[in-house]
Amino acid sequence: MDIQIFVTGGTFDKEYNEISGELFFKQTHLPDMLRLGRCRLEVEIEVLMMIDSLQMTDAGRRLILERCLSTPHTRIVITHGTDTMEETAAVLGRGISGKTVVLTGAMVPYTFGSSDGMFNLGTALAFAQTLGPGVYVAMNGRCFAWNRARKNRVLGIFEEL
Amino acid sequence: MDIQIFVTGGTFDKEYNEISGELFFKQTHLPDMLRLGRCRLEVEIEVLMMIDSLQMTDAGRRLILERCLSTPHTRIVITHGTDTMEETAAVLGRGISGKTVVLTGAMVPYTFGSSDGMFNLGTALAFAQTLGPGVYVAMNGRCFAWNRARKNRVLGIFEEL
Amino acid sequence: MDIQIFVTGGTFDKEYNEISGELFFKQTHLPDMLRLGRCRLEVEIEVLMMIDSLQMTDAGRRLILERCLSTPHTRIVITHGTDTMEETAAVLGRGISGKTVVLTGAMVPYTFGSSDGMFNLGTALAFAQTLGPGVYVAMNGRCFAWNRARKNRVLGIFEEL
Amino acid sequence: MDIQIFVTGGTFDKEYNEISGELFFKQTHLPDMLRLGRCRLEVEIEVLMMIDSLQMTDAGRRLILERCLSTPHTRIVITHGTDTMEETAAVLGRGISGKTVVLTGAMVPYTFGSSDGMFNLGTALAFAQTLGPGVYVAMNGRCFAWNRARKNRVLGIFEEL
Repeated sequence: MDIQIFVTGGTFDKEYNEISGELFFKQTHLPDMLRLGRCRLEVEIEVLMMIDSLQMTDAGRRLILERCLSTPHTRIVITHGTDTMEETAAVLGRGISGKTVVLTGAMVPYTFGSSDGMFNLGTALAFAQTLGPGVYVAMNGRCFAWNRARKNRVLGIFEEL
Repeated sequence: MDIQIFVTGGTFDKEYNEISGELFFKQTHLPDMLRLGRCRLEVEIEVLMMIDSLQMTDAGRRLILERCLSTPHTRIVITHGTDTMEETAAVLGRGISGKTVVLTGAMVPYTFGSSDGMFNLGTALAFAQTLGPGVYVAMNGRCFAWNRARKNRVLGIFEEL
Repeated sequence: MDIQIFVTGGTFDKEYNEISGELFFKQTHLPDMLRLGRCRLEVEIEVLMMIDSLQMTDAGRRLILERCLSTPHTRIVITHGTDTMEETAAVLGRGISGKTVVLTGAMVPYTFGSSDGMFNLGTALAFAQTLGPGVYVAMNGRCFAWNRARKNRVLGIFEEL
Repeated sequence: MDIQIFVTGGTFDKEYNEISGELFFKQTHLPDMLRLGRCRLEVEIEVLMMIDSLQMTDAGRRLILERCLSTPHTRIVITHGTDTMEETAAVLGRGISGKTVVLTGAMVPYTFGSSDGMFNLGTALAFAQTLGPGVYVAMNGRCFAWNRARKNRVLGIFEEL
């Protein structure tokens, strides 16, 4: 079963710039992460953008939607910043039918020691293989329907509406 | 949805003894791993044993089976060494009905830098939430029915029979 | 041989705030780092401040100088942000005689995977034990007299003047 | 100031073989470690052997001695397993004069999360730059003359005789 992975950036893929002391994007770590997980799924990775999800625009969300619709794959994982993951999930939830789409992200960059990225990626790929058509958010080990997920910005976790 | 986690040891939980230079078991890292994954599932962790799966005996497998049957939970994740995971899966597959049981493990200890543990734990917890009754092996991002999984000892990956 | 360690913050001790996505200071990692290094030196750790060295003021530098002068120890290591390490070194170089003072820092926080912190701390503690009286900067495996060190902000390394 | 680094293996460079579950040697991590430390010293790395120091033979020690004598460099760091570091140090201590030779090692492999390797390498390179002629063991943040170092096998630390 092939899975399409769309990369949009987010904390997942942020890195530390040791010259400026700021976080930035270089290239996606998804291939490294799949290697570390000894993942043997057939996946196709496509980088749509590399941005902080606070910078995600309507045009960006339309692009993600269009690629979800146009890819021949029916099982899709999207890496996305957590700050506006619910907004993107809503656009996809209203615009896609007949496909299983799972958005996931991370609270801490993959390259930092304490990242939740590997765990989240594992859950997202598993949910994408087993859930029926629909758009979902996979965070904190759980899976939320797109219209039921909300990020609690104080606690930094996703909760069910 | 509550999930029962049974810990049996395996590479997952091995540590490096810097005095002897050998790998050994101290205590399970499952709570640490769930914390690192920012996991918000309701889980109940019970350590059944802490052994290399090459040391797993028939009596050990019966204990795991009995605990799977006696726990009130119907969704169960079992951490287990990969070397004899298929044998334990077979005992559980023949003895359990009406519950979703997912065995997982790791090729590299959690405490080493290059572990697949977090990824595998993520997939196992997701599969345990979404799959119907049955006994499964979750490794390499994939999920195998208990009577279809085989460890390829040369490549160190699980394949479908 | 006892060594006094003064902590002033710097990248060394920065952490990632997963709620805000920003770097911040919580508490020093020096005890953890010494434990990780299996360090058996007699050291006395005192936190003077926990700041980014761009925030270091004249008053802050005077405090560091005063504590270097007043501590009974004659061998001192100071952890400090790299951005203004040379300025603090100059204040100490002009104000201290008869003691060996070594400033060190890191380009990447200790808690991130790719930190140079452990290496730099190792060099600083070794230089502090073996060098004669003077004020030094220990970075990039090298040791510079206080009036000979300059941070190359483009390359992110220290060079000799 | 150029430094010669001789690699002989030891826990420093051990890796985990995920197929066999055993530790083994592949290639030295010294270049990676120097890169991680943002080290800007001029060093020349030469791998003399890649063995557990329990396997070190008289012939092996003679080879190390000969290379220390024949290299044009007068400042030398040797990575070595800790179990027989004192024996090799003794052979070098009796056979070398006019050069500064520092042996160091690690209690935990560099590739594992909890390694003391970066710290020890930092101290060894600093001691090699600052100490006068002699043969030394750099472990636990300290530096021992070759005929004063003893590994306490119960505690896993080096002590002064």
